[in-house]
Amino acid sequence: MTKPSLNPLAFFLIIIALLVSSPESRRNPFPGKHSRLLKPQNNLLNADNYIYETRYFEQTLDHFSFHDLPKFPQRYLINTNHWVGPSRMGPIFLYCGNEGDIEWFAANTGFVWELAPRFGAMIIFIEHRYYGESMPYGSRNEAYKNVSTLAHLTAEQALADYAVLITDLKRNLSAEASPVILFGGSYGGMLAAWMRLKYPHIAIGALASSAPILQFEDIVPLDTFYNIVSNDFRRESTSCFDTIKKSWDVITYVGRKVNGLDYLAKTFRLCGKLQSSDDLFNWLESAYSYLAMVDYPYPSDFLMPLPAYPIKEVCKQIDNLAEGVNILDRIFKGVSIYYNYTGEADCFELDDDPHGMSGWDWQACTEMVMPMSSNKNSSMFPEWDYNFTSYAEECQNEFGVTPRPTWITTEFGGHCIEDGETGNNVTGAHHMDLRAATADDPDWLVEQRASEVKIIKGWIDDYYTTMKTVVNM
Amino acid sequence: MTKPSLNPLAFFLIIIALLVSSPESRRNPFPGKHSRLLKPQNNLLNADNYIYETRYFEQTLDHFSFHDLPKFPQRYLINTNHWVGPSRMGPIFLYCGNEGDIEWFAANTGFVWELAPRFGAMIIFIEHRYYGESMPYGSRNEAYKNVSTLAHLTAEQALADYAVLITDLKRNLSAEASPVILFGGSYGGMLAAWMRLKYPHIAIGALASSAPILQFEDIVPLDTFYNIVSNDFRRESTSCFDTIKKSWDVITYVGRKVNGLDYLAKTFRLCGKLQSSDDLFNWLESAYSYLAMVDYPYPSDFLMPLPAYPIKEVCKQIDNLAEGVNILDRIFKGVSIYYNYTGEADCFELDDDPHGMSGWDWQACTEMVMPMSSNKNSSMFPEWDYNFTSYAEECQNEFGVTPRPTWITTEFGGHCIEDGETGNNVTGAHHMDLRAATADDPDWLVEQRASEVKIIKGWIDDYYTTMKTVVNM
Repeated sequence: MTKPSLNPLAFFLIIIALLVSSPESRRNPFPGKHSRLLKPQNNLLNADNYIYETRYFEQTLDHFSFHDLPKFPQRYLINTNHWVGPSRMGPIFLYCGNEGDIEWFAANTGFVWELAPRFGAMIIFIEHRYYGESMPYGSRNEAYKNVSTLAHLTAEQALADYAVLITDLKRNLSAEASPVILFGGSYGGMLAAWMRLKYPHIAIGALASSAPILQFEDIVPLDTFYNIVSNDFRRESTSCFDTIKKSWDVITYVGRKVNGLDYLAKTFRLCGKLQSSDDLFNWLESAYSYLAMVDYPYPSDFLMPLPAYPIKEVCKQIDNLAEGVNILDRIFKGVSIYYNYTGEADCFELDDDPHGMSGWDWQACTEMVMPMSSNKNSSMFPEWDYNFTSYAEECQNEFGVTPRPTWITTEFGGHCIEDGETGNNVTGAHHMDLRAATADDPDWLVEQRASEVKIIKGWIDDYYTTMKTVVNM
Repeated sequence: MTKPSLNPLAFFLIIIALLVSSPESRRNPFPGKHSRLLKPQNNLLNADNYIYETRYFEQTLDHFSFHDLPKFPQRYLINTNHWVGPSRMGPIFLYCGNEGDIEWFAANTGFVWELAPRFGAMIIFIEHRYYGESMPYGSRNEAYKNVSTLAHLTAEQALADYAVLITDLKRNLSAEASPVILFGGSYGGMLAAWMRLKYPHIAIGALASSAPILQFEDIVPLDTFYNIVSNDFRRESTSCFDTIKKSWDVITYVGRKVNGLDYLAKTFRLCGKLQSSDDLFNWLESAYSYLAMVDYPYPSDFLMPLPAYPIKEVCKQIDNLAEGVNILDRIFKGVSIYYNYTGEADCFELDDDPHGMSGWDWQACTEMVMPMSSNKNSSMFPEWDYNFTSYAEECQNEFGVTPRPTWITTEFGGHCIEDGETGNNVTGAHHMDLRAATADDPDWLVEQRASEVKIIKGWIDDYYTTMKTVVNM
């Protein structure tokens, strides 16, 4: 058998751009507070066809040290219906779970389900530790109790989980020779890319979609992300962009007036009182960022139930109201597309995380320090600069932990990936290439998927050729 | 800049064979109890020419989790006398410290010192955590206190130490573009090989000498190591081999007699009482194994002060005594070459580790589970089989820890390294190619070093070529 050589070109299929974050320095670069992070109740796609068995693996909590710690049950979803088995070295498609319930990702990663039969592949979705049902210490409350219990929520531990689980599974099935292909989107895509880098003996390739592995330190300009989100709105309508850009000053101005916060709460139909304009800023900024992530050409239900081309719909609301309508009402109508497309919500909770601690917030306060800023000239978001000192202070206050801002690049690299390696990026919406095919897919997406299939087929063919050579030696 | 492709042929310069272990399942596969593990008092080589500055780096204790743990001072030795500096991208030669005082390895790795001026390279020797002066928790006693304090003595943490330290050092010197070449012997060689695998963005190549990275699980036959040691003795003299092979039964027989253990203690000039024949077995087996490791063609002082070709000397003692001399006296004369070449010892302590806990024993009881057996037919050592259950029980008893026998191959691979990749192994004594050149070096060693220099030069030249291309783009 062979250790396959790294093919960085095929390996890094990255959309750096489509990372989402709320503007406060360390909050939620990934779906968190203002998204549901739940298994969709009524998935608009054919998720019912994604049949799997749910299993649990007794996982080591700390792979890199030897404390006397309890193991935890790691959930994974498995489908072997199309697998051609170990004797024919049937491939294994492994989705690297990200920061949420794994069933949610399984339902939104149709590409893997559609691809598996063509390759005679087994499908495995592994849930990320500390998310969904894969909780150390028996429950989410216990796992999220304090620094000591949260300590082992890190990307390296998650990668080791995947390595240990898949190695054990392959051994039990006598499928050691079956090649493994990794899949992942967003943070899961980062994990897929990093896993291929760190565990080349375990996986022969990785499709890392929308994986912002370069969004660390000073590798990409700090204002890139919000510029791209802003451009998504400007492309739909300049006036929409301008209205949003102006709205922040209006909110600030109104908020400072007597009873101004109450007025804002009423205008935006908040369920509770508004403590400060900043909280409203966060809520709005999240909506715009997430909209850019899921700006699919068809109705979808990934973060929220949404119409096709949701940014276009938001801008329609903002632009098309009668001339006399004030700017705040326009904004409210716009973001209602995101927060209330089904019309079911009577009022809105700005903070729907009752525990006050989300897993991604912890990760952002430890390893996932992704510096971002909003550029006065090119962004529609409020201007702000990145400030690590205040970022670290917030993390100390909330978790009692000090972030390690240079760790990820030390552990996984990133500074020296030359332009060529990110040249054949996937472009499009967040996770889009990983979603199930639809009749509304634009041509570039169809072509992109075809090219990905070809690359994956190439990896597997090369692997089989090498294996035959070794066997015949 | 580029991420260099892995060149497995040049990368794995491995002597699987020259791993040393005492026969009990988990004891000391590497120099430990019966070697000095100290900086040599009177180094026979030109160690005085190895000039360095000693520095300390404030190191993170747990890179992969976020407990609130104290940092520790990591010692490193640095020489920049020959370095051509950051503007010329002068290379950095980094020795990955192994299980002992780093000054000891610096003194016994002449190759790196001799090579640096030719390459205009900086030299750095980093000490491995929990060894020498690089102690967490303020002192060796505190660091070695219990499972909880020893928990972070693992290879992955050590590799991350090296990555963090060298990244910080390069940044401080504005030498981010300087290529790093890794060096290491034995366990340090394993670390060098694994570091190149796990941190390709940090090091462009690794010279891993005598690095038994395949001595895990069932990758190599379990009896390989002791067969090779045995053959080293048989090659010198069949009767020497036969005498040693017979001696175990004699010791067992004598030990069972009334006052037999006292008789053995007297024969082998032990300082204290002999508790069981097994303790004597260990002592003798260690001597034979270490002799195979350091069977250099010139006098040396690595584990112990020894003459040139020490196995030849041992066998001379065993073979050449008058016919009437009994087998135990022959054996004692033989191993005295190893334990008492200077003639200074009046008596011998079987266990010279007063703390009862060595760092390597901990590592062997956690990650470094290297299964070995001794084959009745081909080995001169007592016969024994590998038994993980009893191995794990011993570890529970001594450290309260359960070994993870499949972890190293999961983390670093090994099962699928085909024969071709280990084809250009270095052959020779333990660490031999890393030692300073001497007039007594055999031709193969001179050629081997020349070939290593050529390979390293190739890595550096390729790197410079790529850098120029990137700069000109």
